[in-house]
Amino acid sequence: MREALKIAIIGGGSSYTPEIVEGFILSYAKLPVRELWLVDVEEGKHKLEIVGNLAKRMIAKSGLPIEVHLTLNRREAIAGADFISTQMRVGLLEARKWDEHIPNKHGIIGQETTGPGGMMKALRTIPVLLDICKDIEELSPNAWLLNFTNPAGMVTEAIHKYSKVKSIGLCNAPIGLHKWLMNKYEAKADQIYTEFVGLNHLHWVTRAEINGEDKLSELLDRREEYSGKNVPASEWDADFLRSLQALPSYYLKYFYMTDAMLEEQLASLKENGTRAEVVKRVEDELFELYQDPDLQEKPKQLEKRGGAYYSEAAVNLMVSLYNDKRDIQTLNVMNDNTIDFLPKDACIEVNCIVTAQGPIPIGLTKVPEHVKGLMHAVKTYERLTIEAAVTGSRDLVLQALVHHPLVPSVSVAKTLMDEMLEKNKPYLPAFFA
Amino acid sequence: MREALKIAIIGGGSSYTPEIVEGFILSYAKLPVRELWLVDVEEGKHKLEIVGNLAKRMIAKSGLPIEVHLTLNRREAIAGADFISTQMRVGLLEARKWDEHIPNKHGIIGQETTGPGGMMKALRTIPVLLDICKDIEELSPNAWLLNFTNPAGMVTEAIHKYSKVKSIGLCNAPIGLHKWLMNKYEAKADQIYTEFVGLNHLHWVTRAEINGEDKLSELLDRREEYSGKNVPASEWDADFLRSLQALPSYYLKYFYMTDAMLEEQLASLKENGTRAEVVKRVEDELFELYQDPDLQEKPKQLEKRGGAYYSEAAVNLMVSLYNDKRDIQTLNVMNDNTIDFLPKDACIEVNCIVTAQGPIPIGLTKVPEHVKGLMHAVKTYERLTIEAAVTGSRDLVLQALVHHPLVPSVSVAKTLMDEMLEKNKPYLPAFFA
Amino acid sequence: MREALKIAIIGGGSSYTPEIVEGFILSYAKLPVRELWLVDVEEGKHKLEIVGNLAKRMIAKSGLPIEVHLTLNRREAIAGADFISTQMRVGLLEARKWDEHIPNKHGIIGQETTGPGGMMKALRTIPVLLDICKDIEELSPNAWLLNFTNPAGMVTEAIHKYSKVKSIGLCNAPIGLHKWLMNKYEAKADQIYTEFVGLNHLHWVTRAEINGEDKLSELLDRREEYSGKNVPASEWDADFLRSLQALPSYYLKYFYMTDAMLEEQLASLKENGTRAEVVKRVEDELFELYQDPDLQEKPKQLEKRGGAYYSEAAVNLMVSLYNDKRDIQTLNVMNDNTIDFLPKDACIEVNCIVTAQGPIPIGLTKVPEHVKGLMHAVKTYERLTIEAAVTGSRDLVLQALVHHPLVPSVSVAKTLMDEMLEKNKPYLPAFFA
Amino acid sequence: MREALKIAIIGGGSSYTPEIVEGFILSYAKLPVRELWLVDVEEGKHKLEIVGNLAKRMIAKSGLPIEVHLTLNRREAIAGADFISTQMRVGLLEARKWDEHIPNKHGIIGQETTGPGGMMKALRTIPVLLDICKDIEELSPNAWLLNFTNPAGMVTEAIHKYSKVKSIGLCNAPIGLHKWLMNKYEAKADQIYTEFVGLNHLHWVTRAEINGEDKLSELLDRREEYSGKNVPASEWDADFLRSLQALPSYYLKYFYMTDAMLEEQLASLKENGTRAEVVKRVEDELFELYQDPDLQEKPKQLEKRGGAYYSEAAVNLMVSLYNDKRDIQTLNVMNDNTIDFLPKDACIEVNCIVTAQGPIPIGLTKVPEHVKGLMHAVKTYERLTIEAAVTGSRDLVLQALVHHPLVPSVSVAKTLMDEMLEKNKPYLPAFFA
Repeated sequence: MREALKIAIIGGGSSYTPEIVEGFILSYAKLPVRELWLVDVEEGKHKLEIVGNLAKRMIAKSGLPIEVHLTLNRREAIAGADFISTQMRVGLLEARKWDEHIPNKHGIIGQETTGPGGMMKALRTIPVLLDICKDIEELSPNAWLLNFTNPAGMVTEAIHKYSKVKSIGLCNAPIGLHKWLMNKYEAKADQIYTEFVGLNHLHWVTRAEINGEDKLSELLDRREEYSGKNVPASEWDADFLRSLQALPSYYLKYFYMTDAMLEEQLASLKENGTRAEVVKRVEDELFELYQDPDLQEKPKQLEKRGGAYYSEAAVNLMVSLYNDKRDIQTLNVMNDNTIDFLPKDACIEVNCIVTAQGPIPIGLTKVPEHVKGLMHAVKTYERLTIEAAVTGSRDLVLQALVHHPLVPSVSVAKTLMDEMLEKNKPYLPAFFA
Repeated sequence: MREALKIAIIGGGSSYTPEIVEGFILSYAKLPVRELWLVDVEEGKHKLEIVGNLAKRMIAKSGLPIEVHLTLNRREAIAGADFISTQMRVGLLEARKWDEHIPNKHGIIGQETTGPGGMMKALRTIPVLLDICKDIEELSPNAWLLNFTNPAGMVTEAIHKYSKVKSIGLCNAPIGLHKWLMNKYEAKADQIYTEFVGLNHLHWVTRAEINGEDKLSELLDRREEYSGKNVPASEWDADFLRSLQALPSYYLKYFYMTDAMLEEQLASLKENGTRAEVVKRVEDELFELYQDPDLQEKPKQLEKRGGAYYSEAAVNLMVSLYNDKRDIQTLNVMNDNTIDFLPKDACIEVNCIVTAQGPIPIGLTKVPEHVKGLMHAVKTYERLTIEAAVTGSRDLVLQALVHHPLVPSVSVAKTLMDEMLEKNKPYLPAFFA
Repeated sequence: MREALKIAIIGGGSSYTPEIVEGFILSYAKLPVRELWLVDVEEGKHKLEIVGNLAKRMIAKSGLPIEVHLTLNRREAIAGADFISTQMRVGLLEARKWDEHIPNKHGIIGQETTGPGGMMKALRTIPVLLDICKDIEELSPNAWLLNFTNPAGMVTEAIHKYSKVKSIGLCNAPIGLHKWLMNKYEAKADQIYTEFVGLNHLHWVTRAEINGEDKLSELLDRREEYSGKNVPASEWDADFLRSLQALPSYYLKYFYMTDAMLEEQLASLKENGTRAEVVKRVEDELFELYQDPDLQEKPKQLEKRGGAYYSEAAVNLMVSLYNDKRDIQTLNVMNDNTIDFLPKDACIEVNCIVTAQGPIPIGLTKVPEHVKGLMHAVKTYERLTIEAAVTGSRDLVLQALVHHPLVPSVSVAKTLMDEMLEKNKPYLPAFFA
Repeated sequence: MREALKIAIIGGGSSYTPEIVEGFILSYAKLPVRELWLVDVEEGKHKLEIVGNLAKRMIAKSGLPIEVHLTLNRREAIAGADFISTQMRVGLLEARKWDEHIPNKHGIIGQETTGPGGMMKALRTIPVLLDICKDIEELSPNAWLLNFTNPAGMVTEAIHKYSKVKSIGLCNAPIGLHKWLMNKYEAKADQIYTEFVGLNHLHWVTRAEINGEDKLSELLDRREEYSGKNVPASEWDADFLRSLQALPSYYLKYFYMTDAMLEEQLASLKENGTRAEVVKRVEDELFELYQDPDLQEKPKQLEKRGGAYYSEAAVNLMVSLYNDKRDIQTLNVMNDNTIDFLPKDACIEVNCIVTAQGPIPIGLTKVPEHVKGLMHAVKTYERLTIEAAVTGSRDLVLQALVHHPLVPSVSVAKTLMDEMLEKNKPYLPAFFA
């Protein structure tokens, strides 16, 4: 690797950007960034300028020799990059609103990464990402693509299947759990060992050790829980948790507590509108702050936004890839033989050793019998969705919806399909050619 | 094999018995039955006598040298038997009523083999079958056990795991489809080839050929359907069927058309009581008929009962085992390598070559991607249920219910568990020790 | 399928042809052949005419409406064919002579299908077969290709990997064993069940039943053996056979009795020249006979040739494919899940159900632990050889030879490679481009 | 883990012991050993005293609070131990002499871990180790057993199958390669990443990176080689190495260069006697040195002995287990899903993350197609050998020998079997009961 790195952030106008900029500043000694390219689409130009200028002020304050470039020209940003990170949202929050609202209307969980809403996001996003990958193949074939764009598991699997780009999917949930454990047990990062089994937003933690001592039983018994900002905090049932013998991702509440979660969604919808609309208001406030020419650092309010530690996860990964660090990180990578009932080319979320040549999954020591079926059911839906996104096949959309555990019947699936495809028409050229 | 066979029918007092007796009479040339033992429990003594006497009259009329024995002594019936068939119902129709009624009460499909109802039946039945198997291991270790007792897939898997008895699970659905195709296409049995993929009561037919010609697309297009007597005939959606590229078992309506099926159940419950109660009335009428001392053959009214071709399936299987016939039959046997994502010791429903040494599964040529997740989800539930039945663990019951695709949440699962276990207390010694 | 079939025999000038012609005559009622095309290359023109004219006399005598066509135009023969069979020998017996002679010279088994000799045959043959497949893809895409050309397993695997032609590999060893068992036990074909495990020319028979009764232990105890004409009859060691618990293919003597077999080869080489030279003399005699204008049937002397029952195997397979017969035949087809440690696209020799849509492998009931390694070692060599044949890579040839169990070291492998490639230069354009 | 550790060394009278004592002294800060128990059998009493007294002098010089206990009472040494390490030799060097000599006599590689010699060692050793494990299960069930005793892969696999002891197999070859690379590239340990694929004494290195940069191609090109003291240094063929695309273990010379290695063995045998006899002389010299009451440290001459870095490997492993270090070490552990064609319970040599709960295998990024067959062949032999050792079955010994790639025929296998079993009679009670 070179000693003066070029980084490109696709969706650079995002409200998250100050966090990753802070990350580059803090890690400069291990990751010598020379050029930081923030790129966005025409519609995002205004936000790009606001957040880009804040980035410039932050770098200036740090005194580091990092150049910040703002551009709408994606190819320029990508050319010769060492690391590319994506944090974009095809269709913006407006599209997310419908991902949440249409299912809710029909008594189904409406969520941006899980269920029918996640599917629509995948259908909109995968073709755009594959298009970006064509540019990368041409302009920076050795670059690492760090994919934060949700649904990160499906997007990463699609990239591995349909491009040659070296890509890794990232989620903040694993690092979030670590931070929570560090705080709870007053432990340092390297004193904690957890084992993640499953898929992105569908994992189970089957080991949690502090200094080699098992804390899982304790965590399950006490039902204390780590939860993301974007998932309501309904309590797990104690008997269920104990008999599950694993700590479920908070996204699993959509599957295990569907009734309570739906009730909460409908109540919240009535009161505050969709989560997309809530986030929109938070974002507007953030950009208000970002415009302040005296602001030279990441504002604390950003933490409310929901994606805590995303940037830390990203920078950690770049640092390990760059330095051949061989530490353990929980990433979204190809299954290979790790989970023996899933295809080798399925994307899973798993502990990896991060070498300069890429992450290597570590074998799983416990795969609970209990959850194999649900994991396979969601992976089946994911694979059908990926194929649908690439081919524009309504048949595959229907089959993916019908076989999603949160969709109760073919008739509901058809209704959802028709409404959701229609509403997303502008973002689905493959379906409306 | 010997030339004078001993057959034992456990649950011999069942209303089905005249059908299997007819089968033995018709197949005598290929299956030289000398002794037919009908055995039942004390509570079934009256029915055993009625149906046993009808059996004796049927044999007498046939002029064949078959001895019919009626007994309440299971060990006497089993000792030295060549073939043993089970068609019993632990808890009788009264227990089935609650299998159907309790889930319905909570807005869940109530069915005797699928969903929470099927689970309770498994919990009641598996320990009894394993007890029978101990007798077989001791008294007729070379006998073939033909298991009709539902849920046949789980019961057969439990027997393979926890006993040394040679056991095969049987269902009338595959032979029913064949009969329907024979009629539809005016074809003989050996002109038809179908490929079944899946589990008992959860299969998909992925090939259907008459004289080597594909008829599957036609069947899917026209949406004509074969359906069992015990499953309401809601129509499949045409787009769904075409895009599924396989003919689903009619039991799959509980999964794919949950809403419509539940509605139908609730309406029918209101009008006629549970299916168990309907069947009870049909059975009462049948036994009324059976008592007629002039009746010397299987009455036509038996066909209304719902288990058409069960006996034909059983006799066909005995004939092929006895004669090393090596024809193809669709049976419930251990997976081994057939379906690569399921465990080797999982029971699946699959085409087999039937040799004298037992059935051998034939490789699957098409396993639709679409259905892998659902199949694995139900198999996961089945395996948890089998372990629960053997160990009496409430933890496993809870996990099995939670991970069943028809159970919407942990809280519903707990409610069902508590009510259903309590109601089945007399049949669940392992849970109430 | 049509009612007037066109068959093409590639390598139609072979001395085997009268046998397959006899097969068509005997099976005409089940396989209505209208056109029989015998095609050969320019160098084989003379033999094609001799054997072709005999074929015509045989058909004429039968009185059947089969037209015999002789041609050097392969595309004309292939166009619109229903079944195509290959029985050719690239490089003729002259090339075989060196396949046998060069290894012998270096103290290694010299055999036309096993070891370095078989590898050279594969390197010469695979490109020619793939070329034929291109014609079939274009001119008769629905035809079945029955591949007799040795090494049949590797050739069939190569076709499946590198073409879309529907191809099945065939060997006479399984049918030969059946005939031998029929004779030994005075049994009919449908009373015998054998299970074959392994690869072409590398199988183990793990079950042998007559009327459902196990005869394997008896066969292993008595050490009686079925052996092909082309493999010397050194006796198996009794302890070895008993502890192996399977009847090994006679080709396995090259692996299990390498020392004795090599000794026999060297002695025979000294006395009679290579096996190729012996066969050459037999063939010359046969063609002498074939020229007799009064000869109207297959001469008995053909049996000495070594390929007994080849034609019966071929005609049986065509009959079953044509009539959707669903009987059991031992064929060379893709593994899929049958043997769980080999790749899905590896060609194996296995019992199959033959339907009109093609053969389906039957699950194996016994895969001896003892032989897994040897089977995998030979399959590894085969896969390297196929890749070498397609790419012309010397690296792969070297690795294939080194990893063949009959080649004792890298230095011997290099010597063999250099001599054998050089000697086969005219037939290896990919290696000498 | 406790803060005052008890260590037991079984075979404590070995000439290697001073090395491991030095290891404990150097690592005391990370591994607080309080009691060090050296245990040996009656025949080894004299050597135990010599080496034990040296150990005491070494500890005394270090000033550390480690108590050294010498005992012939194995149970006393094992009771309550935290770590147990085995370095014993059943039958002593005398038995090894015959392991080497008998095969050589018949023209076969004679080696103490590879081929027929290794098999005899396994047959002698496995029952003794399983006996030790019974003591551990009873007296220190939480102890880690570090198994150095060769053949380490087979012994470790046997322990996992037939006991509940937590055991890890260890070899000095991987650490040896690392040391060689460190020296060659002037790199520190944590700058090197290598990937090992295969079995104990049968691995291939498929990745070798310094600071993330690939050095494998360079190492293959230059044919420089790391070799153990106990394996003669015949040069690899350059073409072979390049086309293999992996660095083979030096033990693989017995398979790839059988002819040259055998020649070398026979020449050396003539000149120096067997390797066992050479080692015997080295050992005698060492014990001469050890007796010197002024010697207070490991003498340099020990390095000639052949097992360089064994103790460093052992101490590293204990340190990582004790401290939950989660670094990467190459160990012999159960395969689980790592190599998809081997059984889950097969012992393989693989990179692992070492946690306090034990090592976890890291997924393999490259498994060369070329070597799958050979690896499976040797594993097949290993599994047959383990079963033979446990059951005392001559049938399994014969099958294991026949299927070992270095044994050329059944007849040689039988000769070897008879002679070797007879010679080892005193150590094989299961075979001579």
